[in-house]
Amino acid sequence: MSGDFSDLLIEVRRIVHETAKGIFEELRREAHNTHPELEDIPVIASDFTLRGGKRLRAFLVLVGYWSREWGKSIDEVKYLMTGIEFLQSYLLVHDDIMDRDEVRRGGPTVHVWFTSRCREKSLLGDCSHYGISQAIVVGDYLESMAVSTFSKLELPANAMTKLIQLYTRGLRIVSYGQYMDLMLSMKPLREVDEADVLLVHKLKTASYTVELPLHLGAIASCKYSDNLLHELTSYAIPAGIAFQLRDDLLGLFGDPSITGKPVGSDVREKKKTLLVIKAYKEAPPPYK
Amino acid sequence: MSGDFSDLLIEVRRIVHETAKGIFEELRREAHNTHPELEDIPVIASDFTLRGGKRLRAFLVLVGYWSREWGKSIDEVKYLMTGIEFLQSYLLVHDDIMDRDEVRRGGPTVHVWFTSRCREKSLLGDCSHYGISQAIVVGDYLESMAVSTFSKLELPANAMTKLIQLYTRGLRIVSYGQYMDLMLSMKPLREVDEADVLLVHKLKTASYTVELPLHLGAIASCKYSDNLLHELTSYAIPAGIAFQLRDDLLGLFGDPSITGKPVGSDVREKKKTLLVIKAYKEAPPPYK
Repeated sequence: MSGDFSDLLIEVRRIVHETAKGIFEELRREAHNTHPELEDIPVIASDFTLRGGKRLRAFLVLVGYWSREWGKSIDEVKYLMTGIEFLQSYLLVHDDIMDRDEVRRGGPTVHVWFTSRCREKSLLGDCSHYGISQAIVVGDYLESMAVSTFSKLELPANAMTKLIQLYTRGLRIVSYGQYMDLMLSMKPLREVDEADVLLVHKLKTASYTVELPLHLGAIASCKYSDNLLHELTSYAIPAGIAFQLRDDLLGLFGDPSITGKPVGSDVREKKKTLLVIKAYKEAPPPYK
Repeated sequence: MSGDFSDLLIEVRRIVHETAKGIFEELRREAHNTHPELEDIPVIASDFTLRGGKRLRAFLVLVGYWSREWGKSIDEVKYLMTGIEFLQSYLLVHDDIMDRDEVRRGGPTVHVWFTSRCREKSLLGDCSHYGISQAIVVGDYLESMAVSTFSKLELPANAMTKLIQLYTRGLRIVSYGQYMDLMLSMKPLREVDEADVLLVHKLKTASYTVELPLHLGAIASCKYSDNLLHELTSYAIPAGIAFQLRDDLLGLFGDPSITGKPVGSDVREKKKTLLVIKAYKEAPPPYK
């Protein structure tokens, strides 16, 4: 990473942090004024979003925004960079429920946090189901924040429409990826092949981690064409798949104090990563 | 209900049905072309949305749209009427998970449908958790459909921005209502009073069932003012609370073959309805 590049990433992180903090502060007041107990929602949503995250997606929004005119004012695109990180938080909150993950970004996942809160407050009933239910609510809340933050961009009507259509298409593709991922995790290893795993990576990771931010950034620059969007896609998808393969490696061999993720949760949840598929194929018959 | 009024409701139902069917058909193709197994998502989302529903919210969109000019072409607002019904489906799918409801609109709820599908396909693992996970995905999918359908409206940039901001505010308010509802269901009866219950009805029902459709319709007419929105709110909230109180009565005393809802699920899930709060207050001490 060159000096310029890493300076830019630091700048992106600062802008996203400041912008998100301001939005959460506003929502904390809205929630408090509705009923003081409701503050829990923006408080945990904020903590979860601000306690970590590489801001890779926000950075890629900027790359897309600059794809035809490098160096344009970042300020005009800060709401898009921040909104895409709310999208990421939303997907992680729901994903963690499905994967039964307990730790994320060096702290408890949202459903685990609510389960603890249920016990602290001595609520009656099933605290584990309560935790899942409130985490569904908080995920939904974060998704609405992504959309409302996008709407703060000052764009002409046709660009805003295009932006919303690409964003919602991105959400559908993530749903397809998540559905396939859940289904593969419930199938025996011998029924899953490399092509299935790569399709999940393409749908679940590459599309919204790389392609979507680049596309949204390009739309926000108002200098987009179908041709530019295709060009961006052509490297976004392979780069996104590579990103996921690296993430799978870190999930098994990474240092949790650096990655903020528990080791081995993919294996415990019977995730069909390429590592597992290859290991199964190479294993001598008695180990299959 | 006058003849004209019920004719209009029938017309609204027809338009929503046709428009939604066309959108689901398009998404069925998108899903199939991505991977044939993915058709399950639009298929269950479509079945759940089209198998019932009063289309009250779509009707109220039209009332809002006509609030300053009665009788304008319905066709221009059909995507808003349909999108609001996707919002309703999304909220029901997630709500049913939280409330552990098994029947809705005369058929299985989405998580129950996926749990059965898991058993039919002899998938390995916890089919109940699988059902919940896939239903979270389908709810999220339906929410993205609401937003993408709104974006088909041809509105000037400022009206589209206002529409998205009111819509996302509506989603936040529903989250607040859902959070309070879940929390009250975990508190002992003696700690819950009438004001808490009415707040939940205001946040969870009145806001998105009555106020939001009226507001969005008014915005789409491009003849809105802050004054008009306040006027609409002033009767939307009391009407919405009344709607919920009636729904609670039907939930306990209604005929499931007409309502499509199981009897008594509120009581089983320890929902703090006004009926339950009043019954508790009036009960002689030994029954408390």
